[in-house]
Amino acid sequence: MKNFITMAHGGGGTLQNDLIREEIVKHFSDPLLAPLPDGAVTPEGLVFSSDSFVITPRFFKGGDIGKLAVTGTVNDILMAGGIPRYLSCSLIIEEGLSIEELRQILSSMKETADLCGVSIVTGDTKVVPKGAGDGIYINTSGIGFKRPGITLGAERIEASDKIIVSGPAGEHGLSIMAERYGLESGTLASDCAFLGKAVELLSQRAGNKLKFMRDATRGGVWGIVKEIFENAPCGVILEEEALPVTPEASAVAKLLGVDPGFAACEGCFVAVVAADGAQDCLAALRRVPGFAHAAFIGEASGGKGDAVIKNSWGALRELKPPTGDQLPRIC
Amino acid sequence: MKNFITMAHGGGGTLQNDLIREEIVKHFSDPLLAPLPDGAVTPEGLVFSSDSFVITPRFFKGGDIGKLAVTGTVNDILMAGGIPRYLSCSLIIEEGLSIEELRQILSSMKETADLCGVSIVTGDTKVVPKGAGDGIYINTSGIGFKRPGITLGAERIEASDKIIVSGPAGEHGLSIMAERYGLESGTLASDCAFLGKAVELLSQRAGNKLKFMRDATRGGVWGIVKEIFENAPCGVILEEEALPVTPEASAVAKLLGVDPGFAACEGCFVAVVAADGAQDCLAALRRVPGFAHAAFIGEASGGKGDAVIKNSWGALRELKPPTGDQLPRIC
Repeated sequence: MKNFITMAHGGGGTLQNDLIREEIVKHFSDPLLAPLPDGAVTPEGLVFSSDSFVITPRFFKGGDIGKLAVTGTVNDILMAGGIPRYLSCSLIIEEGLSIEELRQILSSMKETADLCGVSIVTGDTKVVPKGAGDGIYINTSGIGFKRPGITLGAERIEASDKIIVSGPAGEHGLSIMAERYGLESGTLASDCAFLGKAVELLSQRAGNKLKFMRDATRGGVWGIVKEIFENAPCGVILEEEALPVTPEASAVAKLLGVDPGFAACEGCFVAVVAADGAQDCLAALRRVPGFAHAAFIGEASGGKGDAVIKNSWGALRELKPPTGDQLPRIC
Repeated sequence: MKNFITMAHGGGGTLQNDLIREEIVKHFSDPLLAPLPDGAVTPEGLVFSSDSFVITPRFFKGGDIGKLAVTGTVNDILMAGGIPRYLSCSLIIEEGLSIEELRQILSSMKETADLCGVSIVTGDTKVVPKGAGDGIYINTSGIGFKRPGITLGAERIEASDKIIVSGPAGEHGLSIMAERYGLESGTLASDCAFLGKAVELLSQRAGNKLKFMRDATRGGVWGIVKEIFENAPCGVILEEEALPVTPEASAVAKLLGVDPGFAACEGCFVAVVAADGAQDCLAALRRVPGFAHAAFIGEASGGKGDAVIKNSWGALRELKPPTGDQLPRIC
């Protein structure tokens, strides 16, 4: 661990994982804190999640910080096996933000909350002086209720389980990169979206054959799979060619030299399901509007900690996420 | 409403109240959002609260941002009638913060959480570039369970109900001001503390005679009473001389020309209890270690919206909180 926080500590790579594991989780040492990265499940059957949003720009193709702040926390509750119900909204506003922009963001939050079926019931507002913030930062925390019949845990994963990705990879990160660098990106936009319908259908179809879910935010699809299997009792083999990538995302990725598998998504998740019935689950997921690109991208295999990726030649390499910061302030 | 956010929108005065009421509550328009300012009570009996902490300096006499972030949200849950149980911790760290300082803050959070009997079970970490933050901002959100036998609501307040303050006024705000201005303030320190024991005893003693509670944070004791009675069906008469103020706080207040009744507390709350039994409640509260200064400071009286304060001459004046910002980044 370095002596000072760097941007790389927030980039979703190995440095950030070390910071969270070696400092935060170690200090708080709570049994509920460690196992599920997206949210905690309490003995009372509550699912609790919290996220702060510092994205720049605040308005982007496919969404804005308000929409993202609602879907982000709602999706995290879904990933931890909860049915989202209540949200808080805590704002840290930099002096000088226009009231008009604040209104747009609040409207977007309300509209998205209605769409997700959650109520924003509590919150807080702080103002910091010019230069001590950047427009607006939003924290949303949320409460959900555990979905019956589903128990998620990386320890339940076993060899031959299938890895499903729910949609095309990297759309959020690549679209934000294209905007920041002023690249022409055609129809490419952030995939920022509510995952509720897809998760509900998948849960119904898979029941307890669903072992684990995680949305592929910071770190992207490959980064998230790597993290999941750090806590699983077995390893994973991924198929590079199986990852769905749209032509627009692919074009931007090639221009920037970025692997779409490590670019952030905001409306795409990874699910690990038992081999028996996995085909059914995938078919069900593909029938949900917006999820036609869902695909198998690999399977559980090998010893604990092994994570390899097979390219189109059939060659295997170790799956290594970037150490640091691919893109600051992506969410 | 002005066109841009100013520091005064975060100062706990009337401008902030307008911002919250006219923009945030109006946009989110949820029946659970409006009634209890410190937290929401859901139909399932959950109490949910959220607060972001941006205080400067981060380490101060009597506490630090970590301790404050835990007691702040825990106390809010208590005020809303809940028994606090779970907390989230979401950090927005400015690039360049030392890991050593982060560790101190995390340790302080853990120690305080243990003292308050809550578990930190989920969270998030974001890093923003130098100049887009100020060291560290912490959001804590919390879940509690509704305390049986207690129903809080400003609508339950009626004429002759007594107003109790749990301790000396303004210690947090005045201590922080003294530190910022480099004043010698002797033993004066922030009153930052867990209110659980006091609230538990008061709740047991008062039962449903307890009508309302609120901790006297931004806005101070007078400011909070004013806000409580904006939602009550009757008015309030306060006794200026009855407000407990320590000699140290009084000395700093006189130097700065600040009314301690409007200076922020972080370990002091206002309770409204039925006249019948109020004396018992006060006596019980005073027996809790640290709460010997608890006192009656006025009573419910007069028409809705009336809020007056009586000075030592017996002269009445309208209770008017500052419009704007007494002290930026006090919590």
